[in-house]
Amino acid sequence: MPDALILLSGGLDSVTALAWALSERITVLGALSFEYGQRHAREIAAAEAVAAYYRVPHQTLTLAPIRGSRLTGQGDIPQGRDLSALDETVAPTYVPNRNLILISYAVAHALLGPATHLVGGWNGADALNYPDCREPFLAAAEQTLRLATEREFTIARPLIADDKAAIVRRAIALGAPIHLTWTCYLGGERACGTCDACQLRVGAFRAVGVIDPIPYAVAIDWSGCAPYRQPEDL
Amino acid sequence: MPDALILLSGGLDSVTALAWALSERITVLGALSFEYGQRHAREIAAAEAVAAYYRVPHQTLTLAPIRGSRLTGQGDIPQGRDLSALDETVAPTYVPNRNLILISYAVAHALLGPATHLVGGWNGADALNYPDCREPFLAAAEQTLRLATEREFTIARPLIADDKAAIVRRAIALGAPIHLTWTCYLGGERACGTCDACQLRVGAFRAVGVIDPIPYAVAIDWSGCAPYRQPEDL
Repeated sequence: MPDALILLSGGLDSVTALAWALSERITVLGALSFEYGQRHAREIAAAEAVAAYYRVPHQTLTLAPIRGSRLTGQGDIPQGRDLSALDETVAPTYVPNRNLILISYAVAHALLGPATHLVGGWNGADALNYPDCREPFLAAAEQTLRLATEREFTIARPLIADDKAAIVRRAIALGAPIHLTWTCYLGGERACGTCDACQLRVGAFRAVGVIDPIPYAVAIDWSGCAPYRQPEDL
Repeated sequence: MPDALILLSGGLDSVTALAWALSERITVLGALSFEYGQRHAREIAAAEAVAAYYRVPHQTLTLAPIRGSRLTGQGDIPQGRDLSALDETVAPTYVPNRNLILISYAVAHALLGPATHLVGGWNGADALNYPDCREPFLAAAEQTLRLATEREFTIARPLIADDKAAIVRRAIALGAPIHLTWTCYLGGERACGTCDACQLRVGAFRAVGVIDPIPYAVAIDWSGCAPYRQPEDL
């Protein structure tokens, strides 16, 4: 089985990708998180907890801040947006060229050891408004990395066709530690429930009919949803 | 004319690329230098001097160190190597995935303004032992950047077919401030004259028949070479 590093933000997507990699018996040598000036650095604590849960070595790489995004300090994080009619406009929370920067550093790190695979939680839902989460970008990046390094890197992207509900279903099926994840763009004690990321997450759990186990700062209508059972309860 | 940023290391190659861009009347909005843990951070002072010479705004971006190279602290810089029979082996001074990291940050920076072009000193001589300096890598990176950002970036690489002697000839023809450049991999007061970079530089000047105007720590045989005349003397 291939040796891999996982880009683990601590969000539901990358945690589900890690659960997938382990279920596929990929050898996950390490989990990498990145600080790049994001407000929600709290997600890194979530990544650490998830890596510990799976007993995967975890490392946080502190990079130079990536400026020019709502996520990294330019203006407020949008809250309460109507996401029912999203078009393909690039989101105000797009971080300029973030994914190529993170992938590039992950590969520089991989070159210190034997890893040939990078695993990440890129998915169909994010692809809509984040060009650097789309399949053509990831395919081009994979080719570029091979040329840059002379190592046959593979970017494994198991969720690339999934919407958020599909990811929740997969996370549950794989027994991923959903209760340890962090999705909210704000770095509060509880998830805000109203930023784009929270809205999409809540909507996905409701679509699946399961109550999201993480605490929210606002009341969420979970009527018709079943309680979530942590993997260790199953 | 397009708006551009130049990746300016302060070495002869990138300085010649800057001289080329200005001669082509490309609007150079800024020059970017990068700290990534290299021993020869002295080159950044050279980049600053060259940018000031051309009155181009200069900025140094301090990135997370890129580990795993002789250039960034792992082992000694090779000196006195026999470079007469170089094959295509990756050099011990290769910095893992450096160029994709630098290009990715340069693009993140470009997205804060109107620049659509990145200019750099990638060339045929470096391409031999540095896979991330080769034409296929740069073409793939260009395509990847366009997909990541939805901006039609161009990576201008005017020296890509040049060997080091051709670059010296071009630098002289363009009146580039060669005396301000820094090439040596070591960060000393004077260029060491014996590391791979110094050897290639000295060999190129000798091939062209001109005395390199920068000071060397060792005696160089310049017999048969004419004195270099600084641009302001011409």
